[in-house]
Amino acid sequence: MQKHPLKNDRLLRALKREPVDKTPVWLMRQAGRYLPEYRAIRQKIGSFLTMCKTPEIACEITLQPINRFDLDASIIYSDILTIPDAMGCGLFFEDNEGPRFKFPTQDLNSIKALPIPDPNVELRYVMDAIRLVKHELHGKVPLIGFAGSPWTIACYMVEGGASKNFNIIKKMLYDTPETMHLLLQKLSDSISIYLKAQIEAGVDVIMLFDTWGGILSTEAYEHFSLHYLRTILDSLASTNIPTIVFTKGGGQWLEMIADTGCDAVGLDWTTDLKIARERVGNQVALQGNLDPSILLASPEVIQREVKKTLTDFGNHPGHIFNLGHGLTPNIPHEHVAVLIDAVHERI
Amino acid sequence: MQKHPLKNDRLLRALKREPVDKTPVWLMRQAGRYLPEYRAIRQKIGSFLTMCKTPEIACEITLQPINRFDLDASIIYSDILTIPDAMGCGLFFEDNEGPRFKFPTQDLNSIKALPIPDPNVELRYVMDAIRLVKHELHGKVPLIGFAGSPWTIACYMVEGGASKNFNIIKKMLYDTPETMHLLLQKLSDSISIYLKAQIEAGVDVIMLFDTWGGILSTEAYEHFSLHYLRTILDSLASTNIPTIVFTKGGGQWLEMIADTGCDAVGLDWTTDLKIARERVGNQVALQGNLDPSILLASPEVIQREVKKTLTDFGNHPGHIFNLGHGLTPNIPHEHVAVLIDAVHERI
Repeated sequence: MQKHPLKNDRLLRALKREPVDKTPVWLMRQAGRYLPEYRAIRQKIGSFLTMCKTPEIACEITLQPINRFDLDASIIYSDILTIPDAMGCGLFFEDNEGPRFKFPTQDLNSIKALPIPDPNVELRYVMDAIRLVKHELHGKVPLIGFAGSPWTIACYMVEGGASKNFNIIKKMLYDTPETMHLLLQKLSDSISIYLKAQIEAGVDVIMLFDTWGGILSTEAYEHFSLHYLRTILDSLASTNIPTIVFTKGGGQWLEMIADTGCDAVGLDWTTDLKIARERVGNQVALQGNLDPSILLASPEVIQREVKKTLTDFGNHPGHIFNLGHGLTPNIPHEHVAVLIDAVHERI
Repeated sequence: MQKHPLKNDRLLRALKREPVDKTPVWLMRQAGRYLPEYRAIRQKIGSFLTMCKTPEIACEITLQPINRFDLDASIIYSDILTIPDAMGCGLFFEDNEGPRFKFPTQDLNSIKALPIPDPNVELRYVMDAIRLVKHELHGKVPLIGFAGSPWTIACYMVEGGASKNFNIIKKMLYDTPETMHLLLQKLSDSISIYLKAQIEAGVDVIMLFDTWGGILSTEAYEHFSLHYLRTILDSLASTNIPTIVFTKGGGQWLEMIADTGCDAVGLDWTTDLKIARERVGNQVALQGNLDPSILLASPEVIQREVKKTLTDFGNHPGHIFNLGHGLTPNIPHEHVAVLIDAVHERI
């Protein structure tokens, strides 16, 4: 594979807490339904999973926001549930519903029976998409690869889909912690191999999405989510690829997350960025953290709130501008342009 | 009204950070669908609102958990949405769905048109239920009165019911903050009068439920939720009735909440109780904070986790044992008995 040197290295510099000319900005779910060109493909293909599993389509979607906006990073179009899908859990999506599994993983035997997917076989479509994107980008911006955290993936696998109370997995965690740990260890191993393959395929940065870490008590978070995040980060250390960890609802645990060895901590919008910076100092970069709902407000409000976020972080290196959570389909794409300009111009 | 002196004042002593023989315990949603005697009434009456609005029934339901368990407090059976219901917003519930409003409050004119309900007229049924319960309790345990926070009530009123993204109210907050403040001020006034009437009717303690404060950024939380909580607490100060403030997801803001002048801060289960105690010291009592899902686990696990919670708080006065969120219908009531015994016996 031909290597293109990066023309825009703001993200990588910010991850190393090095000075940048402009604060780098990218947005969680920047490739998604708020974009008309995304909706056009979605309508043509129909199935979300087919879109993820067809490298040409995944590549096209990954590049859509890069072509439209002045973003400083791309993120491979994929899903955190590719791993349990590759494990044979029967992932499916019903019209505009959350993900579901035909075969929920709820006992020791089904956990023991789970295979560790070969990322270059069952998940080859992700690697192919990464290679395509890297080729098409010609080094324009870095490409972020990602995985869900073991805990977050386990939530979907055990509950059989999205959940409100997470009763099944919490019963497993408290009643049979050794069973819970076996599943998390298996996911941890699978994710490490998967991310190493993504790095070999060409991604420049790795992000771990711990969407459901925030539903745990502090102690359970340490043992059942953070421990496995650390294991994965340790396994990637020799690659020298920078890493970002995002635990939604993890504002109380910033110092612990910063101690995992990641290069950046992602923040949701509930955390005050100024206080967060004071708490972790220069130990890690911080990514975030505008409330995505602000993109529903007027351009003037968006500009004001972007400025406030930049000011809150202050005049240090090590800030990656992002939302505190993913872009939602109802956000006007014109407002996304306003946001990106406001970050770069510090209006 | 005849006054019964309290036979069990553990809750009141803990609220004042005075020593107690046993840690007081009560549970959010202790009167509810996990109890067979509750389900029997529910089946007979059918409508949840009718149950709230019939003082004899509300009284009976309030007393059900007191009669069954060795609890240290009762809480009036009611709902945080009685106020917008009394304002004429058309509150209704569809089978096992969350609350909804026929007339959502989404613009300045509808906010201006909202009346301030007279608690002894439109909400008289709550006062009648309180008087009945106080009479029936004969001072056995204290009775907690409550209201939702202005922000939380506004969430339901503006969104027209439960919401996932709170897009409508966040757009209002960011685009037209003065409109948002007008609604919150009106709710704040209504809640103050309502709680004073509850105190006159006989409640011993006041609790404010800020269920949705945790969806806000720190700054928005301060201006749009905490500010109004403080206003209400200020208006109640002369009554000398102790107050508890619970912001779900408010773990990052403990010090700010403790500074409102409340007597106790309620904690959800994500916050480490030991760290919380270190942060606020003896300034306020702390209420919480076992993950309610633990009640789905075995009695041994429940006992172990109760002990851990008690140990985390440590050997100071000022702990009120509770869950970090409400009891859910799927929890075995036998496990609730295990929890209460474990708290009192420090097994």
